[in-house]
Amino acid sequence: MTVTDRESPMDLDQIAERAARAARPFAATEPRARAAALVAVADALDARAAELIAIAVRETGLTEPRLAGEVRRTSNQLRLFAEAIVDGAYLDARLDEADPDYVIGPRPDVRRVLEPVGPVLNFAASNFPFAFSVAGGDSAAALAAGCPLIVKAHSGHPELSRRTAEIVSHALAEAGMPDGVFQLVEGQEAGVELLKDDRIRAGSFTGSTRVGVLLADVAASRPRPIPFYGELGSVNPVYATAAAVEADPDLLSGFLASVSGSAGQLCTKPGFLFVPEGAELGDLADAAAGVVEHRLLNPGIGRAFEQRREAVLGAEGVTPLAEGAVRVDEADQRFATPTIVEVDLERLRAQRDELLEESFGPLSVIVRYRDLAELPELHRELFPGNLTSTLHATDADAEAVGDLVDALAETSGRVLFGGWPTGVSVTSAMQHGGPFPATTSDSTSVGTAAITRFLRGVAYQNAPQALLPPPLRDDNPWGIPQRRSAAGRSAGWGRLTGTH
Amino acid sequence: MTVTDRESPMDLDQIAERAARAARPFAATEPRARAAALVAVADALDARAAELIAIAVRETGLTEPRLAGEVRRTSNQLRLFAEAIVDGAYLDARLDEADPDYVIGPRPDVRRVLEPVGPVLNFAASNFPFAFSVAGGDSAAALAAGCPLIVKAHSGHPELSRRTAEIVSHALAEAGMPDGVFQLVEGQEAGVELLKDDRIRAGSFTGSTRVGVLLADVAASRPRPIPFYGELGSVNPVYATAAAVEADPDLLSGFLASVSGSAGQLCTKPGFLFVPEGAELGDLADAAAGVVEHRLLNPGIGRAFEQRREAVLGAEGVTPLAEGAVRVDEADQRFATPTIVEVDLERLRAQRDELLEESFGPLSVIVRYRDLAELPELHRELFPGNLTSTLHATDADAEAVGDLVDALAETSGRVLFGGWPTGVSVTSAMQHGGPFPATTSDSTSVGTAAITRFLRGVAYQNAPQALLPPPLRDDNPWGIPQRRSAAGRSAGWGRLTGTH
Repeated sequence: MTVTDRESPMDLDQIAERAARAARPFAATEPRARAAALVAVADALDARAAELIAIAVRETGLTEPRLAGEVRRTSNQLRLFAEAIVDGAYLDARLDEADPDYVIGPRPDVRRVLEPVGPVLNFAASNFPFAFSVAGGDSAAALAAGCPLIVKAHSGHPELSRRTAEIVSHALAEAGMPDGVFQLVEGQEAGVELLKDDRIRAGSFTGSTRVGVLLADVAASRPRPIPFYGELGSVNPVYATAAAVEADPDLLSGFLASVSGSAGQLCTKPGFLFVPEGAELGDLADAAAGVVEHRLLNPGIGRAFEQRREAVLGAEGVTPLAEGAVRVDEADQRFATPTIVEVDLERLRAQRDELLEESFGPLSVIVRYRDLAELPELHRELFPGNLTSTLHATDADAEAVGDLVDALAETSGRVLFGGWPTGVSVTSAMQHGGPFPATTSDSTSVGTAAITRFLRGVAYQNAPQALLPPPLRDDNPWGIPQRRSAAGRSAGWGRLTGTH
Repeated sequence: MTVTDRESPMDLDQIAERAARAARPFAATEPRARAAALVAVADALDARAAELIAIAVRETGLTEPRLAGEVRRTSNQLRLFAEAIVDGAYLDARLDEADPDYVIGPRPDVRRVLEPVGPVLNFAASNFPFAFSVAGGDSAAALAAGCPLIVKAHSGHPELSRRTAEIVSHALAEAGMPDGVFQLVEGQEAGVELLKDDRIRAGSFTGSTRVGVLLADVAASRPRPIPFYGELGSVNPVYATAAAVEADPDLLSGFLASVSGSAGQLCTKPGFLFVPEGAELGDLADAAAGVVEHRLLNPGIGRAFEQRREAVLGAEGVTPLAEGAVRVDEADQRFATPTIVEVDLERLRAQRDELLEESFGPLSVIVRYRDLAELPELHRELFPGNLTSTLHATDADAEAVGDLVDALAETSGRVLFGGWPTGVSVTSAMQHGGPFPATTSDSTSVGTAAITRFLRGVAYQNAPQALLPPPLRDDNPWGIPQRRSAAGRSAGWGRLTGTH
């Protein structure tokens, strides 16, 4: 068992050492063996879903249907990564044959493959106790890449983290993965100390901008800095044209559902909805009255939301359309109904420091704009980095929104046309990451492209076959795709010369 | 003309603004148009080679044959990037069709493509006035990716930088590239100020660890941090087995040539050669006497090498095998012949702070080891991050060196079997970058994989065809490879379930 025992103090040195020792044997496993191990973990989670969901409901206050969907998403995410690595295409194996006639002078035999970076430390999130936690997307990506993984459990769901870790550890061991490929640690201090450990080679994180920036600084100021992939803050603006507001009778209810689902504690919750001045949205107070109150994840997040909500409601020029409420119970847990406010563009600009900050909970701001043409510049100015941006428009708007679409793509990882940004689909084409502060790099933490964060290129020059790693050998024992540049072919770039 | 005029003060704000304005039109250019533009730049450099080489000889002290080879390498590097982008495969276009029966719930239409990150600031190097300077690898990669480029010229070859910039600017304009895609600035202060400018979206650098770490800190501590790709220090250890020393009569001359070529001012110069105790290398002083003196790049680098050489020669337990010399002329330029010293393993360990630092010039350290089996641990301890590591072994050693090869691959971007690390081949499989301090990230700055540094994923969800970027449209107007995940196929991962 590689899960930290609560009874004995954690020996972080020993944990880092086990991860480091696992690095070589794990890196040597065949992709199809790791794929099978990921599927084994997925199967084990599915088999224990009922037990896990019961713990999660108690620890997080999220609803049973939401959590059941999240377990499904999490196990299928593991299967998706299994599928993404099984054929070995992700290794990007490139074989440049030796070429005495190479244009730049004789070329040696050079072969390059992506290899795992080594032990990864993943800080779990509070708001997705499955999909961004112990067996979540970052974990799946690190294990798929062949990196030993240490998960720093989130304090918001400790029992669930430990139970999940037991299941994951057991499934990986049963599937024949080396000892030490998966470990769990608890406590902020332990996480920070491990992030400083020279044996850790990459960090990943999903959480607040404040904590993420602190951890990114720790990673960058080590004697040997390491890459740190943090998914931090995002306010996910949504823009609706006049025609779209008119054409879509469900706009208001869709917006409210996206703002209040999981009590708005989603990194893709729409924090701003821009609609034209004078556009008729319907009675928001009335619509919001139908939303039942939802517990916030834990007392800390509850208190922070309560304060944030009061600050927004108290800001100058802010009009509540649906005031909502926050109720505290005897266990210091908070239960919220959605708060929707309205502000005009000038006020938003003037009070950007107060109003543009992310509100982690069921709160959103409706902004009235005058002219579609002002939105691209406005967006670039106010929203330089987001996970998502959304445009509600009709076919008739297509020409008028071209500039705005460019602005959204420049500043966001995902641009949606209609619909709402919450409910991120886990697919090979998903991008969940964008310019800072959405992420500390432009990489993605959802979808199979996330695996590239934990890989690095290594080239082998003039290596004898016996000393090459399997994906680069001529006999290709793993049967993976190899991109071969034949000798002779590189003697000149005649077909490109003079193409202009 | 986009080259900074020396007569008027540089307006950095205007330079950043021009780059920012060029970002959208440049990003919209078709890969084949950018490929043609890169080829046009290559052709223009080749046409002006004689003129450029004459300036470079004077400004850098490098030899005419070396510089002629470097121009060839540089123009062909541009052609290689043209070839790498022309078919659009680098865009990694992924099209996941909408799927109502997706295992995790209905899947929207999600399409992802790699888009340019925006304006790139590239700090040119001193030691490759062509290949890592104004029109060098980082520049080629940024332009190939579709990012407006600002090059901060190296002060070591100002006239060459300006002349090259004129040629590049003119060729890009003639090839129809948008105004502002290429600009040159001069001066350290200008570089640092631009690196802090919010409109710059990525930085690249080749140079010393000291300066690289400073610049990386500037990039990381901006209000909006940006990725910074620095190629910093590397000492490129070489290990030779007893059998290899015996089998290779040219070992010594190959080593000397690699250490002293371009006066050792190469990032891949072998700084350490490990040979078994008692192995007969021949007379180094004698061999080194045949190497003619070579000018160091500039007075600053010359002085630094002079001091470094004295420190190494003065360190305890260091024995000079070929003492070499440094001569100063009336223009304060230094001319050096190679210095080769020997030290035993215990001394090297004890004085690692003094001895392990990179010596930028013709100096290398021979270390005697007792047992091949001690090398893997030794290597991991002393050389955690390098651009290259090299192994000289014979077929008979194959089994004995397995561990060592693993250690080299874990710590280096490129592992060579025989030969010498200097003379990096520019090919699609090349990796020029490794764990810190070799690079500030694990990416490569040579070879076509370098383009990924300047790209980021953007996903479009449920976008109408008219608002999709060309590489993601169903009619595929650029004719690029698109990876399509059809609906229905994703309904279950049956073939992976239970594979263990």
